[in-house]
This record gives sequence, structure tokens and C-alpha cells, in this order.
Amino acid sequence: MSFTEIEYGVADGVATITLNRPERLNAFTFVMRSELIEAFDLADADDAVRAVVVTGRGRAFCAGADLGGGGDTFNHRRSEEMFGGQETVDGSPRDGGGTVVLRIARSLKPVIGAINGPAVGVGVTMTLPMDVRLASDTAKFGFVFARRGIVTEAASSWFLPRIVGISQAMEWAVTGRVFPAAEALEGRLVSRVLPAGELLPAAYALAGEIADNTSAVSVAAIRRLMWSGLSAASPWEAHRADSKLMNALGSAPDAAEGVTAFLEKRQANFPMKVSQDLPEALPSWPDNPYE
Amino acid sequence: MSFTEIEYGVADGVATITLNRPERLNAFTFVMRSELIEAFDLADADDAVRAVVVTGRGRAFCAGADLGGGGDTFNHRRSEEMFGGQETVDGSPRDGGGTVVLRIARSLKPVIGAINGPAVGVGVTMTLPMDVRLASDTAKFGFVFARRGIVTEAASSWFLPRIVGISQAMEWAVTGRVFPAAEALEGRLVSRVLPAGELLPAAYALAGEIADNTSAVSVAAIRRLMWSGLSAASPWEAHRADSKLMNALGSAPDAAEGVTAFLEKRQANFPMKVSQDLPEALPSWPDNPYE
Amino acid sequence: MSFTEIEYGVADGVATITLNRPERLNAFTFVMRSELIEAFDLADADDAVRAVVVTGRGRAFCAGADLGGGGDTFNHRRSEEMFGGQETVDGSPRDGGGTVVLRIARSLKPVIGAINGPAVGVGVTMTLPMDVRLASDTAKFGFVFARRGIVTEAASSWFLPRIVGISQAMEWAVTGRVFPAAEALEGRLVSRVLPAGELLPAAYALAGEIADNTSAVSVAAIRRLMWSGLSAASPWEAHRADSKLMNALGSAPDAAEGVTAFLEKRQANFPMKVSQDLPEALPSWPDNPYE
Repeated sequence: MSFTEIEYGVADGVATITLNRPERLNAFTFVMRSELIEAFDLADADDAVRAVVVTGRGRAFCAGADLGGGGDTFNHRRSEEMFGGQETVDGSPRDGGGTVVLRIARSLKPVIGAINGPAVGVGVTMTLPMDVRLASDTAKFGFVFARRGIVTEAASSWFLPRIVGISQAMEWAVTGRVFPAAEALEGRLVSRVLPAGELLPAAYALAGEIADNTSAVSVAAIRRLMWSGLSAASPWEAHRADSKLMNALGSAPDAAEGVTAFLEKRQANFPMKVSQDLPEALPSWPDNPYE
Repeated sequence: MSFTEIEYGVADGVATITLNRPERLNAFTFVMRSELIEAFDLADADDAVRAVVVTGRGRAFCAGADLGGGGDTFNHRRSEEMFGGQETVDGSPRDGGGTVVLRIARSLKPVIGAINGPAVGVGVTMTLPMDVRLASDTAKFGFVFARRGIVTEAASSWFLPRIVGISQAMEWAVTGRVFPAAEALEGRLVSRVLPAGELLPAAYALAGEIADNTSAVSVAAIRRLMWSGLSAASPWEAHRADSKLMNALGSAPDAAEGVTAFLEKRQANFPMKVSQDLPEALPSWPDNPYE
Repeated sequence: MSFTEIEYGVADGVATITLNRPERLNAFTFVMRSELIEAFDLADADDAVRAVVVTGRGRAFCAGADLGGGGDTFNHRRSEEMFGGQETVDGSPRDGGGTVVLRIARSLKPVIGAINGPAVGVGVTMTLPMDVRLASDTAKFGFVFARRGIVTEAASSWFLPRIVGISQAMEWAVTGRVFPAAEALEGRLVSRVLPAGELLPAAYALAGEIADNTSAVSVAAIRRLMWSGLSAASPWEAHRADSKLMNALGSAPDAAEGVTAFLEKRQANFPMKVSQDLPEALPSWPDNPYE
């Protein structure tokens, strides 16, 4: 698999996806969109990958949609070549950021955003389904859509208020303001702000905490359960899913090892693999429910 | 349009709605309810209005329901004259605070609460669908319903936990306590607390930030999208709405101007008007789904 | 009613439920599960109980599931004697923690968790439907399920993100880390951290604040309304429930007393009783929707 606008590498149980158009501040394109989705497919299929770190090459994380199309950037009708043959929803091309975030939410591996610089427009909304967002103190953020004449995309109307609360979400969305990492931290958009040099080490430490201590199958199931629980109409739906998953996983090898290792005060060595041992009871998370 | 219990004025792109019964601490009445709804209708219909500021005359924001009816204040059966002919839900008169908050949530213009003093009962629940709540350091708050023998109204069981989280919402609701601005800030009910003299200037600065930088059509669409996204059963519903709105707005004049102005490093001059250019794909937000 | 793994007592309008297996750090068992549910039934049926405080005997709050079954602890198939005859969901035994949290959410009395020490696994998820969580500075917390090979249970995929936001919930769930009270406070899992000796006094002060000032019927109705509002698909469902409850309670004796007492600047003496005066319009909260 060779990528042109991202880099993908695996080391020490962690896949790193690097947005890699530094000369364009890693601006988002249709190619990047496709490559990101493919990279998450690779990470999910590879049992050696226990967590994914997403970061940007150079001084930006992602400056948003590439505005090389000028005033026609968001005009889906401008180029049959670029937009033709796309999947559609009710006759409209699927929003590009949305295809990425729905894929990230569906990831079987936890995802850590290491936001190394400006993350604006789709550059920030693409991070919303990640499990943890860490920011460099040089990062800045902006849900700038209202300043470009468009709307908050990438299903951010669903994700953002569920991360920071509806009022904080509305303030950022209707002003479209660009704000520093400190405001992101105070508003709970990111969980930590770090000096630039400590950002990636902190991201890898967190990935290592997951890789060293947890069952990969548990983590995959928990991610699916959490997103489904957040979508669930009631706690009884969550209880239904819990009951089935606890029944399936409670009698499986990882639970036996997890409890035994804990009782023996040693690190667990979980035998199950995401590629083959996911329980059938896993809540569904469709790739594209409009197909 | 002449109002008796509120004032309505427009200046510099901002409508100001002032609760205006200072001798009764701006206590809420059926007249005030109707006037508030009418004022938001005016603001929505006026393209000169880019944001709405709501504040109170005198030392209070709103002391809650006017208790002039004494022990019968909340008794809908006490007065055919006062309550007759109202809209009903399942045979009960529509909750008055609810009619206001559902109207504010439906506003096409962003709404900033400038809470200049006590905001108690419906005085605080009416502010929940506003985009931003700023408080004077003389403000205090109370979801006092349990202390009056009634329930948290104005759909606050829906709005409040989505702003501050369910546990903070429960603590305020079951104690019914009156609490100072500092506790409101810590609990994320308000985004800033300011010295009294700086409250309205801060509200207008925020309104100006919106008016000066954003597309009015974008802001209207984003507000609708966010509230719909918060109500949406899943992120795919948000993605569906995004795809249609990005398709509609991405090829419209405001997007062309927004991107061009950004690239030219100048302030945008958005040509579209809320009164005539809202996209058909805007998610619906019914005024009264029980009709 | 004699309990073996919890203690239940009522004094000064407050029921105290004490997890009482200090030699096992109050580890959770099927007996404890049944006794907790019975205790909440007692509290709901007793009009003398205005609030419930839940705490642990000894140095722990609850260390999680009792791991006395070793590697088979979570294996529902290991013992027909232990698991036979249980209620099921889609053929799986109902998750035990889930039966407790759904009962606590259904409580007619507000519930205060006084977390006096470690609260791990079901020891912390059981607290999520409580109205307020106070922690001793000796408490620690862990959603450790991924470290045991199982999943976040007790409907915590529904409750936790609605308390602390989805990103904080994901970070705790996918790392499975054990964290101190300070991190719980910063992440908004608990509302206050207190020196050990001040924990129970603070819990009783909060219970007293409720008992002394509120209508028991209002509080019961508000709890139901809030949980239903959080589950509601839209604010109109909340408005529908509000309208019916305001109509029912607004003309009832507690509202008359509540307003009159406020106007007379005296403490209210609410006449209505939860055991007999709950309005028919109370939103439903099924015990077991799978029956």
C-alpha cells in the first residue's frame, strides 16, 4: 500500500498516520480522504496494531479543505471528474469529512489525535471521533465553516456537542472563531496541552498504556459499545448489548486470562485476536447505511 | 409592533430583547411569553439582525413565573379567562416556558443571554436554548421547581443535561438550590462571568464577532443543524443532513465569497439573505408538532 | 428485611445503604445485587425517606466484581446453581450491574454516592445513575473492564458519556486505567473531593438540603423527567411530558404550599406523599422492558 498524501507506519504495536502535505499545511483533499479510510482499514486488519496515532507533518495538523479550487472549492458541481461516481445520500455527494469520521468511529483500534499545530475546518472535525485529543501548545482550532459560507460538516453537529456540550459547540460554530489550545482545553475539546516536543511522546505513552494492559478484543468491543451507547435511545438498549457481550466475552479466553493475571499480580497476556475473535454480539456500525 | 412587558430594538446588526418588568424583577407572564415569541419572529424576519441579545431591565434578569396568583399560580384550572383557548398537548395546556424555548432553539439568528442578575425558575430555563450565556457577577441561578411543588419545565430535562451533563443537572434540579454565578461557571452553565458593567459590552462584542465575520445563511443553517444533530438518533442522520447542506451551500454565492475573501485576506461580504436564501435541505424544526 | 451483604438504615429522612463486605473490599456479588435492588424498593416505599446515601464499609467503596471465581468469574455458564433461573435478554443472562443501575435510575428518591475509597469496575459503574457523587481524597476509580477481557457494563456506555462527555469516557474505558480522585474531579465524574472525615457529613448535608426544602413528589417527578428527557429523541417529547406534569402538579396541594410558603418567606410544609400522590402523567421507566 503506497500512499501519496499521508504516511502510514507501524511500530511497537502502534500505527502512526501522518497527514503529509506540509507544503499545503496538510490541507484535506479527496485523495487524503480515501487514503485515511484505507489506512484505518489497514490498522483494523493488523493484529499487531493496538492503537492509532494521527498527527501532521510540519507545522500544521490540517488547515482544512484544500482551497486550491478557490471560490468553487465546495461546489460539487464544478467537476464531474473530481466528484463524479461518488457515493450519494439522497442525491447529494456524501460529505467527505463525514466519510472519514464515520470510519474513525468504526475503528476497532483506539485512536489518539496528536494535534501538532493548526487544526481548522475539517482539520478539527476529523478529530472528533478520536478517543483522545492531545494538543501542542502551538495548536489552534477553528470551526470556521460559518466564515466560509458553508456548514459544520463531518457529522460534527452530532459529535461536537457530545464532547463539549451543546452551548460550547454552538459558540464555536456560530462565531467560527479560531482559538488557541488553552481555550480548547478549557472547553474540553482536548484533554491535554503539551509543549510541542512532548506531544508525540505523550501520544505514544498513552498508546502504550493501552497496548500493555488491555485485551485488544475488549477494547474493540468497548469502542463499538460506547459509540452505540451514545447513539442508543435508552439505557435499556445499552443493557441489552452489555448482557450479550458479557455473556459472550465472560466465558472467553481473554476474560479468564485477565482475571487470573490480576489475581496473580502479573501482566496479562491476552490470547484473543481482533481479526478472528470479535463476538457476534458486537453492535453493528454500518459503513454506509445509505447503500 | 408595540410590546408592554419586553422592549425590542435593533442597532448595529444586533436585536436586543429586554425583559421589562423591573418592578416585578421581570417575572414571567403569559404576556411576556407571547411577546418573546413575537420578538424572535421579528428578529428572524429582519435581515438587518445578525444576532440577538437577551437581557433584563433593572437588577434582575428574570425572577421566574410571576407569583401574583399566589398558591394558584401554576393552577391552569383557576382561570378560563387566562388559560382558555390555549394550545394543548394531550389535553394539557402547553407549558409556557416550553413554547418560548422551542422558539428560541428554532431561531435563525444566534442568541446571547446577558444575565444581569437573578435568573430563577423559568428565568433560567428560558436561557438554555441560547447559544451563549454570559453572566454578571451579581447574577444568581436556581432551578427551584422542587421547592415550589412543580417540575423542571421549559424542556429543561432535555436541554440542561446536554449543556452541563446529567449529574450536574440532577444536583441542581433535585436540590432546587439558588447558586451564585461562580457555581454556574464551574458547572458550565455560563461561559463567562463578568463585572456588571462589562456584561453588555461583552455580549455586543460577541454579537459583533458573529456579524462581522460570518455568513448569515451559514449561521442559520448551522444552528438548525446543531440542534437537529443533538436530537439525531445517530451520526448518520447528521451525515445525511450535512451532505445535503454542503451540496446546496457549497455551490452558492456565500461559499464562493467566503473562500475568495479568505484567500484574498480580506473581510468577506456575503451576498445571501436569510429571508430568501435558506436552503431547502435545512432540517425541519417544527413550531408545534402537536398541531 | 435482613440483609447479609449490605446494611440499610433510615435516620433523619435519609436512608443509608452501606456495602458491607469489608473483608472483600465490598466486592460485588449476586447477593449484593439483589439486596441493593431490594433496598431501593424499601427506600421508595417509605415516605420517611427523602434521599438515599450509598457508601462502603471499611477502606473501599467497592472493588468490583468478586473475583473469587477466578478465571471463571464472568463465565455465566460455569454454574447453573449460581446463574440458573435468571432473567435473560435475547437468551443471555441480564448483566448484573445493569439490573442495579436501571433500578437506581428509577429511584423515586435522589441518590448520593459517598465514595469512601476505591471504586473499580462495577464499583464505579453502579454509581453512574446516582444524582451526585462525592469522593473521599482516598478514593480511586477505574473502568478496568478492558484489563479483564470484558466490556464496560452496567449500561455505562449509555451513562458515562452523558456525565463526562464521550471523549473522557472513551479515554477511561479504553485504557482501563485506575485514577485518583483528583482526575475524577477534573473529568467531572465526581462533583467534590473531600478529606475522608468530611465525606459522610457532606453527603448528609446535601441530603438534608433536599429533605428540608423540596417537595418529595416534585423530586420524584423531576428525577423521572430528567432521565426521560435525557433519553428523549427530541425536546418536544420533553415538552409533552412537562405540559402534562405541570398541569397535574400545578393544581395540586404541594404547588399551592410551595408558592405560598415562598411568598410568606417561611419553610414549606409539603402535604403530598410519594407513596400515594405521584401524578399519572409520570413518564414510564420500565423495570425490565424485556419481560
